[in-house]
Amino acid sequence: MPNQSRIEIQDRVFGAGIWHFGRYVDRYATDGYGPPVSTLQAIDRAGQVEDLSVVDLTFPFDPADLPVAEVEDALKRNGLRAIAITPEIYTRRFTRGAFTNPDAQVRRQAIELVSQGAEVARQLGCDYVKLWPGQDGWDYPFQADHSQLWRFSLDAVGELAAAFPDLRFAIEYKPREPRNSMVFSSVSKTLLGIEEIGLPNVGILLDFGHSLYGGESPADAARLAISRGRLFAIDVNDNYRGWDDDMVVGSVHLTETFEFFYALQDAGWDGVWQLDQFPFREDSVEAARAGIRVMKAIDRALGLVDREALTAAQQAQDALAAQRIVQRALLSTMVEQ
Amino acid sequence: MPNQSRIEIQDRVFGAGIWHFGRYVDRYATDGYGPPVSTLQAIDRAGQVEDLSVVDLTFPFDPADLPVAEVEDALKRNGLRAIAITPEIYTRRFTRGAFTNPDAQVRRQAIELVSQGAEVARQLGCDYVKLWPGQDGWDYPFQADHSQLWRFSLDAVGELAAAFPDLRFAIEYKPREPRNSMVFSSVSKTLLGIEEIGLPNVGILLDFGHSLYGGESPADAARLAISRGRLFAIDVNDNYRGWDDDMVVGSVHLTETFEFFYALQDAGWDGVWQLDQFPFREDSVEAARAGIRVMKAIDRALGLVDREALTAAQQAQDALAAQRIVQRALLSTMVEQ
Amino acid sequence: MPNQSRIEIQDRVFGAGIWHFGRYVDRYATDGYGPPVSTLQAIDRAGQVEDLSVVDLTFPFDPADLPVAEVEDALKRNGLRAIAITPEIYTRRFTRGAFTNPDAQVRRQAIELVSQGAEVARQLGCDYVKLWPGQDGWDYPFQADHSQLWRFSLDAVGELAAAFPDLRFAIEYKPREPRNSMVFSSVSKTLLGIEEIGLPNVGILLDFGHSLYGGESPADAARLAISRGRLFAIDVNDNYRGWDDDMVVGSVHLTETFEFFYALQDAGWDGVWQLDQFPFREDSVEAARAGIRVMKAIDRALGLVDREALTAAQQAQDALAAQRIVQRALLSTMVEQ
Amino acid sequence: MPNQSRIEIQDRVFGAGIWHFGRYVDRYATDGYGPPVSTLQAIDRAGQVEDLSVVDLTFPFDPADLPVAEVEDALKRNGLRAIAITPEIYTRRFTRGAFTNPDAQVRRQAIELVSQGAEVARQLGCDYVKLWPGQDGWDYPFQADHSQLWRFSLDAVGELAAAFPDLRFAIEYKPREPRNSMVFSSVSKTLLGIEEIGLPNVGILLDFGHSLYGGESPADAARLAISRGRLFAIDVNDNYRGWDDDMVVGSVHLTETFEFFYALQDAGWDGVWQLDQFPFREDSVEAARAGIRVMKAIDRALGLVDREALTAAQQAQDALAAQRIVQRALLSTMVEQ
Repeated sequence: MPNQSRIEIQDRVFGAGIWHFGRYVDRYATDGYGPPVSTLQAIDRAGQVEDLSVVDLTFPFDPADLPVAEVEDALKRNGLRAIAITPEIYTRRFTRGAFTNPDAQVRRQAIELVSQGAEVARQLGCDYVKLWPGQDGWDYPFQADHSQLWRFSLDAVGELAAAFPDLRFAIEYKPREPRNSMVFSSVSKTLLGIEEIGLPNVGILLDFGHSLYGGESPADAARLAISRGRLFAIDVNDNYRGWDDDMVVGSVHLTETFEFFYALQDAGWDGVWQLDQFPFREDSVEAARAGIRVMKAIDRALGLVDREALTAAQQAQDALAAQRIVQRALLSTMVEQ
Repeated sequence: MPNQSRIEIQDRVFGAGIWHFGRYVDRYATDGYGPPVSTLQAIDRAGQVEDLSVVDLTFPFDPADLPVAEVEDALKRNGLRAIAITPEIYTRRFTRGAFTNPDAQVRRQAIELVSQGAEVARQLGCDYVKLWPGQDGWDYPFQADHSQLWRFSLDAVGELAAAFPDLRFAIEYKPREPRNSMVFSSVSKTLLGIEEIGLPNVGILLDFGHSLYGGESPADAARLAISRGRLFAIDVNDNYRGWDDDMVVGSVHLTETFEFFYALQDAGWDGVWQLDQFPFREDSVEAARAGIRVMKAIDRALGLVDREALTAAQQAQDALAAQRIVQRALLSTMVEQ
Repeated sequence: MPNQSRIEIQDRVFGAGIWHFGRYVDRYATDGYGPPVSTLQAIDRAGQVEDLSVVDLTFPFDPADLPVAEVEDALKRNGLRAIAITPEIYTRRFTRGAFTNPDAQVRRQAIELVSQGAEVARQLGCDYVKLWPGQDGWDYPFQADHSQLWRFSLDAVGELAAAFPDLRFAIEYKPREPRNSMVFSSVSKTLLGIEEIGLPNVGILLDFGHSLYGGESPADAARLAISRGRLFAIDVNDNYRGWDDDMVVGSVHLTETFEFFYALQDAGWDGVWQLDQFPFREDSVEAARAGIRVMKAIDRALGLVDREALTAAQQAQDALAAQRIVQRALLSTMVEQ
Repeated sequence: MPNQSRIEIQDRVFGAGIWHFGRYVDRYATDGYGPPVSTLQAIDRAGQVEDLSVVDLTFPFDPADLPVAEVEDALKRNGLRAIAITPEIYTRRFTRGAFTNPDAQVRRQAIELVSQGAEVARQLGCDYVKLWPGQDGWDYPFQADHSQLWRFSLDAVGELAAAFPDLRFAIEYKPREPRNSMVFSSVSKTLLGIEEIGLPNVGILLDFGHSLYGGESPADAARLAISRGRLFAIDVNDNYRGWDDDMVVGSVHLTETFEFFYALQDAGWDGVWQLDQFPFREDSVEAARAGIRVMKAIDRALGLVDREALTAAQQAQDALAAQRIVQRALLSTMVEQ
């Protein structure tokens, strides 16, 4: 078992959103939690994280005229690959909405920006284009015709997926922030939309923290998306269930993080284990290392789970037995009992 | 417009769950918030609420051997009609699950109890059988194989709907309570399940409070269910967004309750406006009157909304304009400005 | 260090509320999650939990005329001691309030019931009388004059503490449930009240779960109460931060549970580690064993913490360093790194 | 009654934080929700809001070398007065803490910045200096020694209050954001700290939204602070109870906003009714007008409340009666019944 576990670990691919290594700003520290960080600088920081293999790149690059070739070079010299492009459809011109903006011209700009990002994704050989329509939704009761926003969203994603049939588009859902309510708010609502679009190249990026603070069980959400062939990617981090705190993996919800990875493995999902942390007040390289260290510990613990016993406990829905099995794999002080 | 509004009010049908008039118990006041109340007594209390026309009856009746004919008589003498039967698949023998119980025999008992309830629903000429699988789900991380619970749930509902093609089954979803996590937890997850079942006689009972504390916009949830032809019934009440408090309608979220009814009307949904309140410490007849008084006030306010202006505001996603229009219809002290 | 740890464990005293072994009821399973359990039966169940030494007894006993001597006998034969009496000031006659009931006669009855419980506490040689005024508060906006409820509450507790100067009274605060808002809602509000009362024999029972879902850091809350000499007792359990789920200790928040016990130990607090779990669907004896097994594991992990390093990390407020140190003590798969 | 109401309205003083008219940034729209706005520009915008009389000014001004005299001129020409100075102890250099920073030098810088702000407050004749230590607290379990942070916080505020005995210092508490947990997190914890400091010129700025999403009843919190002579100022806005959304007043919680102002009036508190809104996607001048329009409507509604009946209902803790009385004053469609 330990051997098997070790092999699995060697096979794991770890990734991170490039913004993990960028500069954070919020509405209070408007001068930023540190100085500006360019795309190339962020890639170089990512390169310092030993176990990191892939990154998800926001687009446009910073500066905007940075040639793709330079990004490729930076990735190469840091031993990294671009797994995805995330077009920034949530900055100033899209604050009143990207795909759902009341202004048809801005909606068109959003589609164009994603299309440009998709071209770059092709060049870089990415696995998917991430769609994160965080500004698409509403803030106030009575503000919007919800059916119209839904229509706008599905039409935009459908148009993109049809235009780039060779690429995959992964929608990252989230209950809220920056909008008070986002259109793609949950795994189920996003699946409903994806199935209505009806194209094979649209799926979900499931962010553990979004799922958790949206009241889902991330393990259940993952199973549901996998069962319909729509789990394209995952992000992990942690929070206090009330907000998308993007804390270091495992710092609050060790057991549920473990359950999430167990569900992925059990369902045969073998994608990248990817970080989406915002270490506002920590060193970003150290924070990434910490996240990966926890993921590797969880990976080893997966190898220690008595699967037969756990399956039996779950068939009986025996919570106490299941907890005991899991804690025995996870906790040092349980092992010796 | 006022005339039209008045006509609408005369047409509104108000309803209530019969438990509204029953006896409440919780884990602290285990001797109940009042003495026991039989089914006939509860119907007689419901009869005291002037504007109430229909009730949703829990089944088995109390006492369990109460003949249906006596229930019919009681309804008749109180000017009431049974709109639905709610089989009690959440009492002691189902506490570890009804449709999802680990024991196949208990799962069978749940289906049998619903079937008996369905027969009674036929006899009473109900509009639907309500399914409220509140014990179906899980409490702890790692307790259950979520895919199996999902399968069990869809199979059971599908079997029932196929067995009673002349009846409609309305699933009442809720994030949690009594289970820490319910299988049918949101409007979208329930719609996914319903569409997978693929039968025309399965739909949703949307409880305003469940939707609200589940992080949905109830207006958005209603539009989504209506757009797929699956909104069979609604319940209203109020809460503080953290729990299913089942307070009197409009006591906390006046504006969003108004938005919910506006969305129903706007989408052409013309079902019963039904109460699901738990007035633990209030007189249940007075609490029902209070809830209906608020619903009637909201109904009148619907007639005062400047619809053209509101539609324009919503097309522009102009929150301030929309709020102003709505407050002008709702608030006395705004009218005079 | 391991040796020291082992010694500590032998010294730990574990306790539980007797209701842990009783019968649970809620508003859905009104026929209970199991058959009725008398006080003596509950004590016998508690006796089956090997490491349990003390219990907190609800009063009146069940049946109400059960002689104290029989309770003493039952405790003795089960190797148990009564650490506290919890007068049931939250059952039917107190549902509209105990100390804050609008009816002066009911307020008097509440004080009398607590006084009777205090007499029994004296007889049984308890450490404290627990006050849990869960029905004291309000449900609706505008329902109450908050200042009056506050006054009523302080007056009642002050009267009791003055009448029984040889006993200690521990107020168990909680944000809500069964009332939508409780008067004693947080550690700080309760401390404000206690200091206003100004008597030495009034303190706090800090329930980990109440603190957690009230948005506090239980470790911080404990430090605050200890610093003012008012932490009389603790209860532990777990939840999902949205409700008082009373789950088995450590099932969700392992790290914060660990932090809580670390804070207690670090501040020199050496009271009983007490369970307040509601294992609705589990065997109550097994659930208590599970809770104690986790507490013992945490106790051992306390002995493995590198305290010097942790203190340095906390002085530097270095979250990553602190997490690493703690995970090294807690997680088996971290140790080997 | 209407006459009396009108008179009251003429006497009300309305205010706003100057940041209401500034430029919003968040972690997604890092290029801002609009172009930069200088202090003078923000004052000119505030001047466009007809009913606005006072503003709370962040310090340092923007640009930092802007002479106080120019600020005075700008205020004068816009018919405004500075009610408070809010030193920015939450920008980049204070992101790891202001009063609680692990670095003693940064702690000193925070005190110095507040001191400079206090000097300016004197010059401008402000009513108070606002302390908003939003970066003081912790993010992770085990990160900090909570007692030390508490000590740091009280020492710093005490030092400031002692150094400026002629000025008043108002602590604005909040559960969290930007820190995951703030030291001054609730009305009660802040009162505990203030009373420990023991100086007369330290009090509370109670932000309605902070109180609401912290699980308090803002009306109860106000009564508590007033009863101890510590309510120095208030801010109003609205949110969905899960985050500090800083929405327009009354947009979600009309009834509780009404209850809050009723409590203030009933307790004889006659300070400024002040806005703290963040209209990210709205015109800031229009959003301020909207907030004031709602406050004026509420003010009129206060004049319509049947106080005798409401007092009687509250003495009886009769929620239904209280709601009816309040809705009659608030809702147009209730009046006609």
